[in-house]
Amino acid sequence: MGDLTELLREGLPAEAVLTDPDVTGSYGRDMAGFCAAGAPAVVVLPRTVEQVQHVLRTATALRVPVVPQGARTGLSGAANATDGCIVLSLVKMDRILEIDPVERIAVVEPGVVNAVLSRAVAEHGLCYPPDPSSWEQCTIGGNIGTASGGLCCVKYGVTAEYVLGLDVVLADGRLLTTGRRTAKGVAGYDLTRLFVGSEGSLGVVVRAVLALRPAPPAQLALAAEFPSAAAACEAVRQIMARGHAPSLLELMDRTCVQAVNSLAKMGLPETTEALLLAAFDTPDPAPDLAAVAALCTDAGATEVVPAEDAAESDLLLEARRLALPALERLRPATMIDDVCVPRSQLAAMLEGTAAIARAHDLTIGVCAHAGDGNTHPVVCFDPADPDEARRARASFEEIMALGLELGGTITGEHGVGLLKKEWLAREAGPVAMEVQRGIKAVFDPLGLLNPGKVLDVPGDHSIGFPAAT
Amino acid sequence: MGDLTELLREGLPAEAVLTDPDVTGSYGRDMAGFCAAGAPAVVVLPRTVEQVQHVLRTATALRVPVVPQGARTGLSGAANATDGCIVLSLVKMDRILEIDPVERIAVVEPGVVNAVLSRAVAEHGLCYPPDPSSWEQCTIGGNIGTASGGLCCVKYGVTAEYVLGLDVVLADGRLLTTGRRTAKGVAGYDLTRLFVGSEGSLGVVVRAVLALRPAPPAQLALAAEFPSAAAACEAVRQIMARGHAPSLLELMDRTCVQAVNSLAKMGLPETTEALLLAAFDTPDPAPDLAAVAALCTDAGATEVVPAEDAAESDLLLEARRLALPALERLRPATMIDDVCVPRSQLAAMLEGTAAIARAHDLTIGVCAHAGDGNTHPVVCFDPADPDEARRARASFEEIMALGLELGGTITGEHGVGLLKKEWLAREAGPVAMEVQRGIKAVFDPLGLLNPGKVLDVPGDHSIGFPAAT
Repeated sequence: MGDLTELLREGLPAEAVLTDPDVTGSYGRDMAGFCAAGAPAVVVLPRTVEQVQHVLRTATALRVPVVPQGARTGLSGAANATDGCIVLSLVKMDRILEIDPVERIAVVEPGVVNAVLSRAVAEHGLCYPPDPSSWEQCTIGGNIGTASGGLCCVKYGVTAEYVLGLDVVLADGRLLTTGRRTAKGVAGYDLTRLFVGSEGSLGVVVRAVLALRPAPPAQLALAAEFPSAAAACEAVRQIMARGHAPSLLELMDRTCVQAVNSLAKMGLPETTEALLLAAFDTPDPAPDLAAVAALCTDAGATEVVPAEDAAESDLLLEARRLALPALERLRPATMIDDVCVPRSQLAAMLEGTAAIARAHDLTIGVCAHAGDGNTHPVVCFDPADPDEARRARASFEEIMALGLELGGTITGEHGVGLLKKEWLAREAGPVAMEVQRGIKAVFDPLGLLNPGKVLDVPGDHSIGFPAAT
Repeated sequence: MGDLTELLREGLPAEAVLTDPDVTGSYGRDMAGFCAAGAPAVVVLPRTVEQVQHVLRTATALRVPVVPQGARTGLSGAANATDGCIVLSLVKMDRILEIDPVERIAVVEPGVVNAVLSRAVAEHGLCYPPDPSSWEQCTIGGNIGTASGGLCCVKYGVTAEYVLGLDVVLADGRLLTTGRRTAKGVAGYDLTRLFVGSEGSLGVVVRAVLALRPAPPAQLALAAEFPSAAAACEAVRQIMARGHAPSLLELMDRTCVQAVNSLAKMGLPETTEALLLAAFDTPDPAPDLAAVAALCTDAGATEVVPAEDAAESDLLLEARRLALPALERLRPATMIDDVCVPRSQLAAMLEGTAAIARAHDLTIGVCAHAGDGNTHPVVCFDPADPDEARRARASFEEIMALGLELGGTITGEHGVGLLKKEWLAREAGPVAMEVQRGIKAVFDPLGLLNPGKVLDVPGDHSIGFPAAT
C-alpha cells in the first residue's frame, strides 16, 4: 500500500492522490442496487493523459486492479470499487478541447459533463444528441463506457453513433489512438466502437472525438391517455409502422404518473393506465402530430392533449424525466431494470411485468422509451425487509428472463457491469462469451482493468456476482 | 487438393464445388488495380449456413486459406484469391428473410444485392440508406465486409450505422451470433461493429439484421458551377457550417464533367472547374435549396441551376454516378483512391491532387462526396507503358500521403484490402496495429481467413504487398 501510493505520487500532484479512508470510501459505488462494492486502496484524480498513463503503468507494475470512474451515476455497478483497487476518477479531466461547426465535431476530455457539452455546442447551433436521464451529472467518459442512451434515441440513436475516435490509455500505460476526426473512415478494425460500452474493462478513455448534429427546432409534444398498456403499445406500433420519426416516444404507466404527480404536482391524469408522450422536432411538426393523435385515438386513447407550445412540451418532458426520482420516493430502495424488446413485444413486456409485480406483491413502476421498445421497470422495495428484498431481486431477474423470452436484450442502455454479468452469458451464449473473453485478454492480459465487470476472465481479480444486499 | 475437394463435397452439393481452372480463375480478383491475385484451388458456392460451416471446418482441418467473396466489386483487393485457397462465394445465399416495418429491420443473407434490398424495402415505405456506386451489383455481405458508404452518407452515415446484429461463421466452423434485433442493446462488447469493415478476415457473415428508415421524400437537387475547386470547397464549408443537412453534397472536377459528357451527352457545363451537386429530401426542400444557392453564389459560383423536379434531380445524380465509368474510358486503366479529409481541408486536398497530377503528367479526375470530405481521385493511365504505370502508382501513394498530412484517412469507404495494407500501419501507428493483430488472432488463430488482407499476422498465408502490375 505504502509502495503503491508512493509510486503514484511520483507522477501525480499530492492533491490528486487520496488515501484517507473516509474520502476514498465515498468513491466506492455507482447508483446500482444489489451490487457489492469494495474499499479502494487509493483514489487518483489525474488531470492529464500523462498522469493517467503513470497510474496505469504503476498499476501494471504492482499488479493492482484499476476501476475507472466518471460521475458514478451508472446503474449496473460498473464503477464499483474492488477491495484494494486504484479508483481512477476522470472527473478532473473536464475540458472541452474543441468545437468545430464545419467538421461538426467536439473533442473532449472524459470528465466533461453531458449537459455542459450540450449547452456549449448549442452556442454553435449544434447538438450532441445522447441525453441520459442523468445528463446534468453524468460524464461523456461514463457515457462512452456504458454506451448510454436517453430520450432522444428513437430518432437519434445512442452514444455509439456519435463517437468517431478515441484516445485510450491501455492497461500497460501505452496510448492508443483509434478512429478519426473525419466524417467517414474505414481504415482497419473498428476499435472505437469496441471501446464504447466496454465499461472501462479494455482501456481508459482520455479523449474523445464526438460527432455533432445541427441543432433541430424545439420539439412539440402531445400526451395521450390510454385505458391499458396494450392500447398504448398498439399506438406505438402504428406510429412506427406508418413511418413517423418522433424525436421522443415515451410511455409512463399509472404508477409512474401518480408518483410524478405526488412529487411535483404536475397535474397529470391519474386515472390513465398508460400515458404516451410523442414529440417531433421538424420545422413543421403539425402534420405528424395530427397523424399521431389520430393513431392514438384509433388505438383507444381516451384523451389526446397536444402541447400548446415548446414550453408546455418541455413540461411534459420534465414530467417524464421526473419518473425515476418520483418512483424512488415510493419505497426506501429501487432496482431499475433496462430491458429492450422488439416494438411488437412491448405490450407483452408491460403486461408480463405487471404480472410479475402482482405475483411478488410489489410495486413496479414502468417508464419506457416506447419507440425503442426499451422499458425501465423500477422495482420499489424495502431492503430492510429480507423477504421483500428477496422478492424484489426475484422480480428483477424474472423481468430479464421475460425480456429474453420475448426476443429482447437484458440491457438497452444501462450496461452489464456487475449487475447483469450472469445474464450476459445467457443472452450472448458460449461462443460469444469465449470471443469476448479473448478480446478482453488482448487488451488486458493481467486482468487489471475493472476486473469482474461485464465478464469474468481466468486470472482476473473478480469480486464475483454479488448476493442481494 | 484431391482431399480438399473430396472433403468439401461431403457437405456441399456437386454443383456448389467448382474446380475447373477456367471457371475458378474467373473468381480471382475484385475490381482493384495494382493488386496481386492467386489461383484458387476450388470455388464453393454454399446456399446454407451449415454448408458454410462445413467449408470452414474443412479449411481448418486441412489448414487451407479461405477467401470470402461477394460480387467482387470491391476496390481494394480484399476479395482477391490467394494461390491454393478456397474461394467462398456467398452470392447464392441471396434470400431476404424478413422485412418488418414495425421493428424497421430487414434480415438478409449476405448475397442479397444492395439494390434488390433497396427496392424490396421501398415497397414497405422503408429505405436502406447505404448506396455504394456499385449498388446494382454489390452484395450486403460485401458492404458489411468493407463498411461501404455511398452518396447518402453525408446525411445518413455508412453501413456500420445500419448493422444491428450478425450471424458469423468463425474460422473453425462455429456459429457466432452478435448484436440484436431490437432498436437498442448494449449487452457486452460490440462484436457486430467489429465485423463491419473487417473484410472477411475475422469470420464469414452468413446473416445480417439491418436497420431501416422510413423512406424520405424524393430529393430535390441543384447544380452550382465554380471557377475553382477552392471556391466550391468554400461553399461546402459554408453549407455545413450553417447547419444544413443535405441528403447529397457531391463535387465533380472539370475532368470528371468532361468525361461524363463524353460518355453520356449529359450537357453538363464543360467550362466549369468544379461542379457541386446538392440535394435535400425533406418535406419542403425549398428554403434549404434557396439558402444553399445563396451560399454558393457568395462563394463565387458562376451559375446555380436548380432542378425543376425530382426527375431532373435524378438526372443530376445519374451524371454523378457515371463519373467513374466515364473516367475509366479515358485511358486503358484507372486507380481509384479514397481519401477522406476534414471538410476544411477539402480545398487543400483537391489542389494538392491537381499538383500531383501535373508533377507526374497524368490525368487524375476527382469526384468527391464533398459533404463528407471524401475524395475519389481517379488516376487514369496505361499499364502497358511501364513509366506511366510507375507514375500512376507514385501519384496514387502521394495522394494518400497528402490525405494523412491533412489530418485525413487513407480510406473513407473502400477499405484496406491488399492495396493499402502498408498505409494502414502508417495511419494507425504501432500500438493500434498490435491491438488489431491481437484481435485477428482471437478470431483466426491459424491465419486462414482472407490471409494477407487488412494486416499481416505472424504465421499467416500472406501474399504480401503486390508490386505494380
